[in-house]
Amino acid sequence: MSERTLVKNLAALEDGPVSVSGWVETVRDQKKVQFVVLRDESGAVQLVNPAVRELVDDDDPESATKLATTEAISALAHGSFLTVTGALKHDERVKLGGLEVRIGALEVVSESLPETPIAADSSLDKRLDWRFLDLRNPKQNLIFRVQTTIEHAFRQYWIDNDFIEIHTPKLMASASESRAELFEVGYFETTAYLAQSPQFFKQMAQPAGFGKVFEIGPAFRADPSFTSRHATEFTSVDAEISWIESHEDVMALHEELLVAAFTAVKEKHGEALKEHFDLDVVVPSRPFPRIPLAEAKRIVGERGYEIPRADDDMDPEGERRIAAYVKEEFGHDFVFLTDYASSIRPFYHMRHEGDSSLTNSYDLIFNGVEISTGAQREHRVDVLIEQAREKGLEPEELEFYLDFFRYGVPPHGGFGMGLARVLMLLLGEQSIRETTYLFRGPTRLLP
Amino acid sequence: MSERTLVKNLAALEDGPVSVSGWVETVRDQKKVQFVVLRDESGAVQLVNPAVRELVDDDDPESATKLATTEAISALAHGSFLTVTGALKHDERVKLGGLEVRIGALEVVSESLPETPIAADSSLDKRLDWRFLDLRNPKQNLIFRVQTTIEHAFRQYWIDNDFIEIHTPKLMASASESRAELFEVGYFETTAYLAQSPQFFKQMAQPAGFGKVFEIGPAFRADPSFTSRHATEFTSVDAEISWIESHEDVMALHEELLVAAFTAVKEKHGEALKEHFDLDVVVPSRPFPRIPLAEAKRIVGERGYEIPRADDDMDPEGERRIAAYVKEEFGHDFVFLTDYASSIRPFYHMRHEGDSSLTNSYDLIFNGVEISTGAQREHRVDVLIEQAREKGLEPEELEFYLDFFRYGVPPHGGFGMGLARVLMLLLGEQSIRETTYLFRGPTRLLP
Repeated sequence: MSERTLVKNLAALEDGPVSVSGWVETVRDQKKVQFVVLRDESGAVQLVNPAVRELVDDDDPESATKLATTEAISALAHGSFLTVTGALKHDERVKLGGLEVRIGALEVVSESLPETPIAADSSLDKRLDWRFLDLRNPKQNLIFRVQTTIEHAFRQYWIDNDFIEIHTPKLMASASESRAELFEVGYFETTAYLAQSPQFFKQMAQPAGFGKVFEIGPAFRADPSFTSRHATEFTSVDAEISWIESHEDVMALHEELLVAAFTAVKEKHGEALKEHFDLDVVVPSRPFPRIPLAEAKRIVGERGYEIPRADDDMDPEGERRIAAYVKEEFGHDFVFLTDYASSIRPFYHMRHEGDSSLTNSYDLIFNGVEISTGAQREHRVDVLIEQAREKGLEPEELEFYLDFFRYGVPPHGGFGMGLARVLMLLLGEQSIRETTYLFRGPTRLLP
Repeated sequence: MSERTLVKNLAALEDGPVSVSGWVETVRDQKKVQFVVLRDESGAVQLVNPAVRELVDDDDPESATKLATTEAISALAHGSFLTVTGALKHDERVKLGGLEVRIGALEVVSESLPETPIAADSSLDKRLDWRFLDLRNPKQNLIFRVQTTIEHAFRQYWIDNDFIEIHTPKLMASASESRAELFEVGYFETTAYLAQSPQFFKQMAQPAGFGKVFEIGPAFRADPSFTSRHATEFTSVDAEISWIESHEDVMALHEELLVAAFTAVKEKHGEALKEHFDLDVVVPSRPFPRIPLAEAKRIVGERGYEIPRADDDMDPEGERRIAAYVKEEFGHDFVFLTDYASSIRPFYHMRHEGDSSLTNSYDLIFNGVEISTGAQREHRVDVLIEQAREKGLEPEELEFYLDFFRYGVPPHGGFGMGLARVLMLLLGEQSIRETTYLFRGPTRLLP
């Protein structure tokens, strides 16, 4: 590797020779002195060069070099990647980090075209067209550092608690959720479908005796909607555990994971999030509030909102309102809405003993938006078949899945959570397009 | 959660009441005493019950309970899931862990069908049909615990070294490797393709200024082959880093990752791997041997093997032979074959300065089989376009990718590695079908 110093590590160095590499963020080409702000993956630093505008002494090679450097800086395009060796100088008058690098030698490693196709005020759609340039913004860079920290905190929790990591296949012979939002794939002599979730296969780990499993991986929904919360391909965070007594055990796991993640984010990125997002990370307290869905609907109704839906579900506005209520009443950013009606839950959710109209399930709402669904699963194969039939599914098509329940299976449950939604809501972003590395939607397949 | 004790934790407990949950591995139903081996995700334990074959005293409820328990054990199907409360008793005469649980109460939580469809001697294909039963074998369970440890060690290394985790889209508008092995997906009004690798998008992180990135995720190849090393969907371990000087920097990263992973596996699973695989994990020493491909071909030729290929590539037998040579000469299980001919490398591999017939690339061979390809990438857009053309690609179709190189990009490189292959070779398994949670091949899409 080249012996460059990351910009964030400059502050700890004493004055003296350094080498930095990154891209040109701004150039201020004044008559007597030139300033370049160079950014790398860790931060930005001011480079400074006393301008030498003409050759003073034909025979002085140093003078020629200085002229060449000055001219190179004048010609720099925004975005070009440079390696600069020079002298680090701490100087508290320099606004940017209280230090600068006096340019000795400057090498343009990779030149940018002169016109940058996006600007700070470009539309989101245009920025996504040029996502690789958009991501140079330190704010966007921070989003994916936060994502990295969240995922690692989840995984560290799972590892510490003896979970097994699985990679379930994304090519399936049937739908896992609904036939309505399925992508079809030509698969040799037959047709495959892209997994809408790892649901069936993370459940398979339970009769397989894996006990506790997790997966972070892609899921696909041929969903023609254009909301700020939906994508046709998204990263799903999944866990599934054996020997639960109810969905309460799943919620307890879910809480612990989120507390671990938010604690890690606050510790590692608290300052940067304050700077770039004006955000104070709040680590949620446990237990998160829990409200049965029917009660939540009653509450928002009493507060003057009539949910405009024919079915038993909450709508997004209702979710915002119940979250506002929870924030007022309990000062909490999260709420579990529990015990959803069987009519609006998939066939594999376990229903209440003694009241089959309700399920052992929940949605998790964060800052007013649903980020996750969890449930205890029905593990009794006869009940499962009956529930599938009732939902209009043909048990014959699900034989491979139903087999999982015929040779013994422990009671189990789990959740699936959209990673980009968690990030969006944590950071107060307006769209998951901002918190997805490369968004995929009905009209976006590029870059 | 139910208050069960994991089997592996019984040894540390004193004699006394316990509750265990798991599935029935064997039943020995003797006249006077019954033995059940119960397995859970952590191990197996012997349960013992003095048989009560008839009701001694009609009025004694305890006697009735004992008769019922005896009859329940006699009726147990292999595989049924139980919860047993009873008395833990350490007894060194018990072969299985030196302890047993004397059954107090036994609950059949989930009953298995009486006939298990696979046995120890079932064919691999049949075992894969019933993968969830096959995975109950403690050896298979261990495979995925080792996988979990390997992945976590990789990620810990990446986190410690400031990498950003990315999730690149698996739905693409074009091929990323070759048009020959592409899965097509109907995508709203157009056609998408499943990503054959995250190549283009992990490279995108470089002009985006992410510096160092990693991803572990699925990749898809519509490869009609049926070898023990190929799958149509596999888990790819990918990293890509900026500011390298050559592929040597990528190899250095690659070595460090593997050493971290093997160290973690040895520490966490050394004993279990000895028991189940008769394996002594060897942590490889650094640096791994490096041999230019041309020299490797000369060496195997001198040792009597003529490579039966018209192109410049090595064949699998050649890889086995060069690995055998390396093992003899250097006592090493790994070897980097370097400097592959441009003719057999993708257009985006950087070529030698001054000799465009060779690339800055390598394959990593482990125990005689290729597990990974790495390279420095060509980051000069004009050279890249020329190399694409030379390979018969239309630069017009690659515009979105070529744009990544037009606004400045640091020199960079990386590798992609097949996770199931690493596991297969580490464990001495004969097929990646054994080390893939759910294998996908031309004729296998189920379960």
